[in-house]
Amino acid sequence: MGELVFVITMSAVAVSAITGVLEAGRKPIDLFGVVLVALTSALGGGTMRDLLLERPVFWVANQTFLVAALAAGVLTFVLVRLVRLPANLFLVPDALGLALFTIIGTQVAMNYGAPWFVASFLGLVTGAFGGVLRDILCNEVPLVFSGELYATASWAGAILFIALLHAGVDGTVAGLAAMAAIFLLRIAAIHWHLRLPGFAAKA
Amino acid sequence: MGELVFVITMSAVAVSAITGVLEAGRKPIDLFGVVLVALTSALGGGTMRDLLLERPVFWVANQTFLVAALAAGVLTFVLVRLVRLPANLFLVPDALGLALFTIIGTQVAMNYGAPWFVASFLGLVTGAFGGVLRDILCNEVPLVFSGELYATASWAGAILFIALLHAGVDGTVAGLAAMAAIFLLRIAAIHWHLRLPGFAAKA
Amino acid sequence: MGELVFVITMSAVAVSAITGVLEAGRKPIDLFGVVLVALTSALGGGTMRDLLLERPVFWVANQTFLVAALAAGVLTFVLVRLVRLPANLFLVPDALGLALFTIIGTQVAMNYGAPWFVASFLGLVTGAFGGVLRDILCNEVPLVFSGELYATASWAGAILFIALLHAGVDGTVAGLAAMAAIFLLRIAAIHWHLRLPGFAAKA
Repeated sequence: MGELVFVITMSAVAVSAITGVLEAGRKPIDLFGVVLVALTSALGGGTMRDLLLERPVFWVANQTFLVAALAAGVLTFVLVRLVRLPANLFLVPDALGLALFTIIGTQVAMNYGAPWFVASFLGLVTGAFGGVLRDILCNEVPLVFSGELYATASWAGAILFIALLHAGVDGTVAGLAAMAAIFLLRIAAIHWHLRLPGFAAKA
Repeated sequence: MGELVFVITMSAVAVSAITGVLEAGRKPIDLFGVVLVALTSALGGGTMRDLLLERPVFWVANQTFLVAALAAGVLTFVLVRLVRLPANLFLVPDALGLALFTIIGTQVAMNYGAPWFVASFLGLVTGAFGGVLRDILCNEVPLVFSGELYATASWAGAILFIALLHAGVDGTVAGLAAMAAIFLLRIAAIHWHLRLPGFAAKA
Repeated sequence: MGELVFVITMSAVAVSAITGVLEAGRKPIDLFGVVLVALTSALGGGTMRDLLLERPVFWVANQTFLVAALAAGVLTFVLVRLVRLPANLFLVPDALGLALFTIIGTQVAMNYGAPWFVASFLGLVTGAFGGVLRDILCNEVPLVFSGELYATASWAGAILFIALLHAGVDGTVAGLAAMAAIFLLRIAAIHWHLRLPGFAAKA
């Protein structure tokens, strides 16, 4: 089980790095800048969670994460220069990463004694704020703040996870159910263009 | 006294959340994005202070702040879609929040043993950097860096507070006097368009 | 030796503050905003390193750094309004600061037990991320992500430093050699317009 989580986490880190490369690639940024944006995208959400919890930052203690994000970033950079990748190739693994990061983040926050509502918010931070930091570095309004449900799916799943735990559901079952909910809500949102209302259009 | 501070702090958190909604609402951001900007605006300054002091982050330990900021954000979002709020409705409570956050932040930093000049700077960070982070998320040059005195009023008040304490003035009296100074300087700056010089105009 | 490091560090802090003023001055930002951008530019990289290492933030404990950055920022602001400074006046001291900050940051991270690859990355963070934060505040795509080698020179030097230490070279010799490498690589990059490839141009 521990090994499975490690493999999935590494995959999620790599996928987040790839989305960083794809976004940064549209900017006048060089190879190394693209790699730094990829690292921020992959490691930023978990870093914010760990800083807010006063917990050792996960990739400082174990450099496997930094190496994995870096390798994924460089490989993607090379690949994108060779072939034209379809933009939506990574939507499914990205949704998987969002689901996994959110539930891991929520669990870590609860282990550190955070109150339940704060823990759900730190799950969201873990899942979605790597992308926010990526967009800040690229000088864009964060994508997760608009378009198809993303941050919303993350927070909804974190709250579902906590609700299931409070209802006495086994931790592994609750975690898998909440990850499935985030993943399916995100995929459904992309497929049927589910969005939250904004009020900018009114002005 | 403790209860009064709590009530005023909550009001300041709520007002900061409201200014976040009003700024984010001008952007192509959805409901949840607006709420996240509101949270950043309300909690960002105190979070930076606590991280810099290696102090437990205030809203992680006590989730009342997160709930208050969230509720204020959602209510404002709904309200703004129903009625057109005058833009300057919140200038007075915002000035009150700036004054309160600055002095609380300065006091907290001194309690943690920060040297006096650093403590005054962390008072400024507490008072004004929620707005800076809000503007970064909205992809704008921070508003507190231009226009009528804002960050300047905050830092001036923090230094006044420390000067009064060094002169032997009672803590409560010094705090109230410094808060009054920040509030009045900010309101006067808005009324008479008091600004600091820049040098961009020269180029 | 300790005093020499202190003097060079102070110079590097001051030079970073100056680059902050020069960038912020092109924006509609007032005197105080310019000073805050200068502080971020000067202290931001080391602050990020210290937060990531869970180490007391260097300028919170010793306010000399904050005072030096502030004084450099205000003096530059005044100077720029009086005389037109050539834009490339600070390229050499900035390269010196990059070299020094990178090696100090790498050393500090190793002292805190960070794995070698993480330590090299935190050297880069110390050297280059003050400039990244400066550009985020000024609402620009970070300059260190494009143009002549900058972040790349920093990371290459950090890795050289660690490689020399592993090869048994004396710490002071290794540090000076790595600093010289960063400085010369940066100056050579400016002189011969050495850049890394990007892929934005292809689109």
